[in-house]
Amino acid sequence: VTCLGCDVIAGRVRPPGGVIHEDEHWLLAHSVSPVLLRGWLVLVPKRHVEDVGALTPQEAATLGPVTTTAAAALQAALAAERIYVCSLGGEPHLHVHFHFIPRLSGMPRGAWRVLATMWSEERPWACADEEAETAAEAVRQAWR
Amino acid sequence: VTCLGCDVIAGRVRPPGGVIHEDEHWLLAHSVSPVLLRGWLVLVPKRHVEDVGALTPQEAATLGPVTTTAAAALQAALAAERIYVCSLGGEPHLHVHFHFIPRLSGMPRGAWRVLATMWSEERPWACADEEAETAAEAVRQAWR
Repeated sequence: VTCLGCDVIAGRVRPPGGVIHEDEHWLLAHSVSPVLLRGWLVLVPKRHVEDVGALTPQEAATLGPVTTTAAAALQAALAAERIYVCSLGGEPHLHVHFHFIPRLSGMPRGAWRVLATMWSEERPWACADEEAETAAEAVRQAWR
Repeated sequence: VTCLGCDVIAGRVRPPGGVIHEDEHWLLAHSVSPVLLRGWLVLVPKRHVEDVGALTPQEAATLGPVTTTAAAALQAALAAERIYVCSLGGEPHLHVHFHFIPRLSGMPRGAWRVLATMWSEERPWACADEEAETAAEAVRQAWR
């Protein structure tokens, strides 16, 4: 069975721009190609685990700091108006993952409109991998 | 200006079942009445802060443990198939808040279908406050 989270962690799938941040338990990278929105990042535990409630105390201890730092760096790097942070329970990818979705200038207000539009068939914000690589590098530079 | 997060923390608004878990920085309670889904919990920082990226190191340090424990307790208490964890960027409530949304037996598979249905005008899973109180108590009992 293929797991996208495990594929990224093992290096079998390379997100645009490569790894943005990595520690003992978590890996943050841009969402993979084809990219639906520049700056849409994904945070995954390095261990294959399928429920947020099944994270170990060690994984839980670093989740908050990496989440806060990632949100701040993403917001600064792209001058985002809001940052949405969502773990949508694994479907279709069961490996726990947290989406970091920036509301960039000109995008509709309201999380629902942003997420529904991003995942719609119209894909109005789809971008080239090169734009995602640039965003990933900007987040890396903004990391504190 | 009214802030629902601050109202709950100050006790001016009482979620069904009251406070489920509270520590120095975070408060977890059921979503407020009228309830759209039993077991839909909300985690808020006690400080009024509007960006996940603006959480203090102290707030960030406890975010992961409380998130993991809440997700595990909610899943166990309601025999939920999945737990969705989302901070949707504040609209319309700017005070940072994380939704914990259980996919209960019989609900559609897929986070998007669950969330869109829950927030739709049909409100198919709306329930009495008493059911929410029972769910809150079950989560409290399942807390580890």
